[in-house]
Amino acid sequence: DFDNALEHDIKPAFGQSEEELNRYLTGGLIIWGQPVHRVLDEGDLLVKQARSPDTRGFVTVLLAGPPNSGKTSLAAKIAKNSEFPFVKLCTPEDMVGFTETAKCNALRKVFDDAYRSPLSVIIVDNIERLLDYAPIGPRYSNLVLQALLVLLKKRPPANRRLLVLATASNRSFLQELDVISAFSTVIDVAPLTTAQEVGTVVDDSQAFSPQEVDQIRQELSKQQRYFIGVKKLLDIIDLAKQSAEGYRKDVLLQRLAEEHASWN
Amino acid sequence: DFDNALEHDIKPAFGQSEEELNRYLTGGLIIWGQPVHRVLDEGDLLVKQARSPDTRGFVTVLLAGPPNSGKTSLAAKIAKNSEFPFVKLCTPEDMVGFTETAKCNALRKVFDDAYRSPLSVIIVDNIERLLDYAPIGPRYSNLVLQALLVLLKKRPPANRRLLVLATASNRSFLQELDVISAFSTVIDVAPLTTAQEVGTVVDDSQAFSPQEVDQIRQELSKQQRYFIGVKKLLDIIDLAKQSAEGYRKDVLLQRLAEEHASWN
Amino acid sequence: DFDNALEHDIKPAFGQSEEELNRYLTGGLIIWGQPVHRVLDEGDLLVKQARSPDTRGFVTVLLAGPPNSGKTSLAAKIAKNSEFPFVKLCTPEDMVGFTETAKCNALRKVFDDAYRSPLSVIIVDNIERLLDYAPIGPRYSNLVLQALLVLLKKRPPANRRLLVLATASNRSFLQELDVISAFSTVIDVAPLTTAQEVGTVVDDSQAFSPQEVDQIRQELSKQQRYFIGVKKLLDIIDLAKQSAEGYRKDVLLQRLAEEHASWN
Amino acid sequence: DFDNALEHDIKPAFGQSEEELNRYLTGGLIIWGQPVHRVLDEGDLLVKQARSPDTRGFVTVLLAGPPNSGKTSLAAKIAKNSEFPFVKLCTPEDMVGFTETAKCNALRKVFDDAYRSPLSVIIVDNIERLLDYAPIGPRYSNLVLQALLVLLKKRPPANRRLLVLATASNRSFLQELDVISAFSTVIDVAPLTTAQEVGTVVDDSQAFSPQEVDQIRQELSKQQRYFIGVKKLLDIIDLAKQSAEGYRKDVLLQRLAEEHASWN
Amino acid sequence: DFDNALEHDIKPAFGQSEEELNRYLTGGLIIWGQPVHRVLDEGDLLVKQARSPDTRGFVTVLLAGPPNSGKTSLAAKIAKNSEFPFVKLCTPEDMVGFTETAKCNALRKVFDDAYRSPLSVIIVDNIERLLDYAPIGPRYSNLVLQALLVLLKKRPPANRRLLVLATASNRSFLQELDVISAFSTVIDVAPLTTAQEVGTVVDDSQAFSPQEVDQIRQELSKQQRYFIGVKKLLDIIDLAKQSAEGYRKDVLLQRLAEEHASWN
Amino acid sequence: DFDNALEHDIKPAFGQSEEELNRYLTGGLIIWGQPVHRVLDEGDLLVKQARSPDTRGFVTVLLAGPPNSGKTSLAAKIAKNSEFPFVKLCTPEDMVGFTETAKCNALRKVFDDAYRSPLSVIIVDNIERLLDYAPIGPRYSNLVLQALLVLLKKRPPANRRLLVLATASNRSFLQELDVISAFSTVIDVAPLTTAQEVGTVVDDSQAFSPQEVDQIRQELSKQQRYFIGVKKLLDIIDLAKQSAEGYRKDVLLQRLAEEHASWN
Ligand SMILES: Nc1ncnc2c1ncn2[C@@H]1O[C@H](COP(=O)(O)OP(=O)(O)OP(=O)(O)O)[C@@H](O)[C@H]1O
Ligand SMILES: Nc1ncnc2c1ncn2[C@@H]1O[C@H](COP(=O)(O)OP(=O)(O)OP(=O)(O)O)[C@@H](O)[C@H]1O
Ligand SMILES: Nc1ncnc2c1ncn2[C@@H]1O[C@H](COP(=O)(O)OP(=O)(O)OP(=O)(O)O)[C@@H](O)[C@H]1O
Ligand SMILES: Nc1ncnc2c1ncn2[C@@H]1O[C@H](COP(=O)(O)OP(=O)(O)OP(=O)(O)O)[C@@H](O)[C@H]1O
Ligand SMILES: Nc1ncnc2c1ncn2[C@@H]1O[C@H](COP(=O)(O)OP(=O)(O)OP(=O)(O)O)[C@@H](O)[C@H]1O
Ligand SMILES: Nc1ncnc2c1ncn2[C@@H]1O[C@H](COP(=O)(O)OP(=O)(O)OP(=O)(O)O)[C@@H](O)[C@H]1O
Ligand SMILES: [Mg+2]
Ligand SMILES: [Mg+2]
Ligand SMILES: [Mg+2]
Ligand SMILES: [Mg+2]
Ligand SMILES: [Mg+2]
Ligand SMILES: [Mg+2]
Repeated sequence: DFDNALEHDIKPAFGQSEEELNRYLTGGLIIWGQPVHRVLDEGDLLVKQARSPDTRGFVTVLLAGPPNSGKTSLAAKIAKNSEFPFVKLCTPEDMVGFTETAKCNALRKVFDDAYRSPLSVIIVDNIERLLDYAPIGPRYSNLVLQALLVLLKKRPPANRRLLVLATASNRSFLQELDVISAFSTVIDVAPLTTAQEVGTVVDDSQAFSPQEVDQIRQELSKQQRYFIGVKKLLDIIDLAKQSAEGYRKDVLLQRLAEEHASWN
Repeated sequence: DFDNALEHDIKPAFGQSEEELNRYLTGGLIIWGQPVHRVLDEGDLLVKQARSPDTRGFVTVLLAGPPNSGKTSLAAKIAKNSEFPFVKLCTPEDMVGFTETAKCNALRKVFDDAYRSPLSVIIVDNIERLLDYAPIGPRYSNLVLQALLVLLKKRPPANRRLLVLATASNRSFLQELDVISAFSTVIDVAPLTTAQEVGTVVDDSQAFSPQEVDQIRQELSKQQRYFIGVKKLLDIIDLAKQSAEGYRKDVLLQRLAEEHASWN
Repeated sequence: DFDNALEHDIKPAFGQSEEELNRYLTGGLIIWGQPVHRVLDEGDLLVKQARSPDTRGFVTVLLAGPPNSGKTSLAAKIAKNSEFPFVKLCTPEDMVGFTETAKCNALRKVFDDAYRSPLSVIIVDNIERLLDYAPIGPRYSNLVLQALLVLLKKRPPANRRLLVLATASNRSFLQELDVISAFSTVIDVAPLTTAQEVGTVVDDSQAFSPQEVDQIRQELSKQQRYFIGVKKLLDIIDLAKQSAEGYRKDVLLQRLAEEHASWN
Repeated sequence: DFDNALEHDIKPAFGQSEEELNRYLTGGLIIWGQPVHRVLDEGDLLVKQARSPDTRGFVTVLLAGPPNSGKTSLAAKIAKNSEFPFVKLCTPEDMVGFTETAKCNALRKVFDDAYRSPLSVIIVDNIERLLDYAPIGPRYSNLVLQALLVLLKKRPPANRRLLVLATASNRSFLQELDVISAFSTVIDVAPLTTAQEVGTVVDDSQAFSPQEVDQIRQELSKQQRYFIGVKKLLDIIDLAKQSAEGYRKDVLLQRLAEEHASWN
Repeated sequence: DFDNALEHDIKPAFGQSEEELNRYLTGGLIIWGQPVHRVLDEGDLLVKQARSPDTRGFVTVLLAGPPNSGKTSLAAKIAKNSEFPFVKLCTPEDMVGFTETAKCNALRKVFDDAYRSPLSVIIVDNIERLLDYAPIGPRYSNLVLQALLVLLKKRPPANRRLLVLATASNRSFLQELDVISAFSTVIDVAPLTTAQEVGTVVDDSQAFSPQEVDQIRQELSKQQRYFIGVKKLLDIIDLAKQSAEGYRKDVLLQRLAEEHASWN
Repeated sequence: DFDNALEHDIKPAFGQSEEELNRYLTGGLIIWGQPVHRVLDEGDLLVKQARSPDTRGFVTVLLAGPPNSGKTSLAAKIAKNSEFPFVKLCTPEDMVGFTETAKCNALRKVFDDAYRSPLSVIIVDNIERLLDYAPIGPRYSNLVLQALLVLLKKRPPANRRLLVLATASNRSFLQELDVISAFSTVIDVAPLTTAQEVGTVVDDSQAFSPQEVDQIRQELSKQQRYFIGVKKLLDIIDLAKQSAEGYRKDVLLQRLAEEHASWN
């Protein structure tokens, strides 16, 4: 019945083009520094390779970076920029409580749908969750892993071109499982690491007066190095905004300091 | 049929608003010291962040503290104070003997219900029990863990604001599983640690005459440090009350001493 | 259908009051020493706490002691003394070959029945067997463990008072699983440890002439310390009675010596 | 339906009295030495204890000895000597390929049948196989183990007397699982250890002329110590008998030597 | 229904007599040396023991030797020589993809069929595969192991005589599982170890001219010791035959050398 | 029903001859050096052995080499060259999300189909994926492993000739599982290791002008040793082609350097 379903399904069940992508892009991307440019440029080149008629037309990319660094949004952005007619999204958010088999079938369906379109992008979001990875044990779904490894190596049919964009946070786990070497390319997604970069985001958020921003930048520059994902930073700014007018700046700086402490 | 049920269910199955919350608040909260204020204040700020229209409207909080420290009651109190129209409770007490899949479905349903309401609080009580955690092995339900991790990261739909309040006792276990970093904020719930604090609860219980309370306070102050949850303390007071009039005070002090011994 | 069954079941399936309790009390209790008094007194106090209207009315007690020390009989005795209208018994003897799920359901049913009665005692006999504990591995049923941990913490509904009496032999195992701290109180059930105590039981058994009893007491007092459960001791007396008249005393003493040897 | 079956089954499915016992006694018992007497005498005393009206009427015995030492035959002999009206046999030979649950049910049925008869013997043959024990792992059926542990402790109903005779070879495994302490008594079943004992069996077998027997005894006495089960010894005699007349004696002695070597 | 099938099945499903045996004997046995004689003689003696009316008529034999040493063919040969009316074969080749339970049932059926015939041989081929043994873990089917251990010990009914011939390669694994001691006898099946023996097989194969054979023998005698199964050797000869006329000899010797290297 | 399906299926479900093989040969084989010749020659000899009427007609070959070295293409090439009427392909790509049992059945069906044809080649592609191998644990499907081990040893019926060509990358894993010794022969598939070999592929790709090729060769020869699979190299060339005209050469060399770095 699964195969049957494949034949008669015209509208694929697991998300399609525009609307779905936009959901992950509503926040907008802040160009907070060079690393953001690098990711988007590398993405463009790989899109070209997938599209070009004088190549094998099968490119698989892993966007790897720490939690909250913006991986999912960047993958969505690259996919959107590609302007490929079909964009399929495969995300654990749609599979809460699925059995391993159901996950494999969902994954297979996404790829089978893509094989029917001449030019496709597949986003495989959050591989750790897709594999049900947990560090105690460790545990993971071998069934889903095997499906993923085969699909990442299986060439699409003749005249079908496919770009796979996957995201992941736990590099060493995927390394041990030989998942990383199954991709043709890996793109590093970095957290913010300089006061300059953090300041750009604070400024962009429009939560503070220009004067406050200046004071914040000055305070920030007292610390050598940062290591914070853009999503976390935006979260802290949101919290700071709830405090009484005069305290916002201090709340922001204190929470940043706490965040920093938890990494050292 | 699960999805079907979701559509047609008007009254959600897993508890709603007022009545349910009150069940956990019947005992009343004794303001035995500064830590109680701190938890409630922090709770208020986070409620604001979740409600405010100029934020992402998605806040996830972990109340972490030793057994019997009052976590569930405090979460219920913050939820009640929020005055959000929908409050959903997800507690292992309603899931005794559930399969892992049934637990995942229950969890998913609670979140799906919340996504339909513009302003919701979800209490996820006692994560260790929800995950079927046992220290020998250790064992836990990876299926439920994965569901929880995904739901704690999944942004609610547009125009939906959601505050998640979870409780847990075993910090190191959740740390190892990367559950703690999945929350936007952690609030520490402390046990009583000073003679002053213990005395406040004894006094508040009205189980002893003012004279007895004085004597008890004096005895208590001979010991440097306490480490007892408010629920345990109330339990010991209950037992002491059963003794013959003249012995109550001694029973109380002796049981407190035994409790103390079991921690050192 | 389980919930349905709960509604319409008037006679609970897992044993009730008097008759069932008496089954465990047919042998009678020999008051062989101070430890027996202590257990019964502590039991009385806890019964009071559970019954008293100015408490939370929820008391959970663990009777812990070595195999054959009389735990089950003592729990039955305390339950009987309470004169609570409903006494529910939850024993592995009624669950031979049950699946883990069936055990959880049985356990849940016992508690659900109790919640419907204003004043109840539940005896949870032999936790190790209930949890399918085996030392090689070790192995145990996590499903049943989780059900037990939740039920031991779940407050009965308003106006329902509940006393839970559980028995267990393997203290270190339950300690590691955090089961012991889930009880409000632990009562130690001791084996016989002095010649005096052993002699009391031998005398009480009426298997020997007063003269023989004197000789036995004299022999017994040559050994410093005993460590034998009352059930085992009664068993040895039973076997000794089968020997030819003149040999009984010797058989008794020899078997006691063997028993002693196996402990050192 | 299992309980239903219990009610309406008049002829129990797992063997009954005489015929079944005789199957294990066709070979006959050779009284090759003192250890054989000792086992049978101890067996008689325990039968008395189980039968006597002034005892609790519940005796559980483990016959423990190395493979091939005659445990099953001796248990059958004691059971037969008891002349109890009901003798139930529970043997892995009737359960090849049974699931764990089916084994538990079979075990439970044997005990339930016994509880209906005023005076019963149950033989639980070969506990290791009943528990599916395998040394690599090690592995065993915890479900069957738990059923066994409960049934060995569960007192039969009023006016029912029950003697349980179990056999086992792997003492240390059962020790670790706390199975041995679940029995009221353990009887050691020994292998043959002296030339005298081995000679008695050779003589009894009538496979050799008196003259040959003398020569064999003489040869045997050159070796200090033996360690061979009676079943293995009878097997070797069988094989020796197939050799040409003149060689029988040598074949016997050589195989005995090989057997001995494999133990040292 | 399985038992029902047993009753009405006249032609057993798992192979019978002549034809099946011949399948394993088509290659013919080359008498390449003394070890071959020894195995066949020992086999004859055991056949006698199983058949003789003055024995217990139950003999279980393990043919143990390295891979490719000819175990299966030799077991088939002994079975054929016995001229017993019923020969049953139990081989993993007929059970590819069977569940553990299906394997147990197949095994049980083979034995049950044999119990109905007065004089039977059962060949249990390749115990490691029957037990699903894999060295990483290690893993094996405990269910099948237990079935095998019970059946190897279960005496056939009165007037039924049974010879069991099993084959296995991994001695240490079976030793650890106590499988080897479950057999009444073990026969070693050896690989070829001398140049003389290897030469005999080369000669017998008629793949080389007498002249070439002489040269090969001369070359072979330069190496001290061999360790090659007869099946592997015949394989190498087959490959050598495909080479151009002049090169055959060299290919043979080179492959033998490679084979040798892989053992040192 | 599986067996039934086998009878009535005329067109086997898992791929057949020409078309299927061609899919794996569309890229064409570049004869980049001696190792390619060696593999193809060895393949031819083994095809002869399988076909020749004076052999056992059963040859099993493992093509073992690092990822991306061209194993699957080479196996397909040998199969095509054989001109055997039936070529069956057994590949994980057709089994994404299959249960272990379904995989075993698929494997068995491929072999059963082959047994019906007088002259067959079976390609068993990517044994690690077929066995669901994952390095963390490690994990693998023992059911599929056992099926594979039996089928690799099971001689085809009389007058059936069968060549099995399998591919694998993880040699040490298969060694530990005794899978390698189950094959009659192992052929090593090598990556490119010299500048000369890499240059041949670059030249053959026609992506660069003769002038650029010369420059590239010169650059390449500065590095001592390479270790890159032909598939990876072709991938890098594809990417380089997307860069602006002047940068292609540099992109190629830089990516080769990165690739090299990841191996050291
Ligand atoms: N330059 C940027 N790159 C990525 N995201 C950005 C950027 N600027 C702003 N954002 C915002 O930051 C958030 C990034 O969240 P996203 O879910 O993509 O991170 P993630 O790394 O996938 O997180 P997780 O580790 O939880 O999967 C989004 O809300 C996005 O709108
Ligand atoms: N300041 C307080 N904070 C919390 N609880 C209080 C306070 N004062 C009194 N209480 C009472 O103490 C009890 C706290 O129990 P609660 O179940 O909330 O603790 P908990 O930490 O969730 O316990 P557990 O570790 O068992 O989950 C309640 O009965 C509550 O009425
Ligand atoms: N003072 C006593 N306390 C308990 N039991 C007594 C006492 N005096 C006599 N007995 C008898 O001793 C026996 C105690 O057996 P019981 O089953 O209660 O022990 P237990 O500790 O629960 O054993 P187990 O460890 O097997 O569960 C009963 O037969 C009871 O009648
Ligand atoms: N004194 C004896 N005691 C026991 N068995 C004897 C004795 N004399 C002869 N025999 C014979 O020896 C054999 C003993 O076999 P039995 O199956 O009872 O041994 P076992 O110890 O149960 O073996 P296993 O370890 O395989 O279970 C029987 O055939 C029995 O007839
Ligand atoms: N003396 C011999 N003994 C056994 N087999 C021989 C002998 N001479 C020739 N052969 C041939 O050698 C082959 C032995 O193969 P067989 O399958 O019996 O070996 P095996 O040890 O069972 O192998 P495996 O370890 O794979 O199970 C057969 O083809 C048989 O015809
Ligand atoms: N000499 C060659 N040998 C093999 N493949 C070649 C050769 N020359 C070019 N190719 C091309 O290289 C690619 C080899 O890919 P193939 O899938 O066969 O490698 P593989 O070793 O099986 O990879 P994997 O480890 O992913 O299974 C094919 O596209 C093939 O057309
Ligand atoms: Mg993400
Ligand atoms: Mg709580
Ligand atoms: Mg008890
Ligand atoms: Mg026996
Ligand atoms: Mg074989
Ligand atoms: Mg390949």
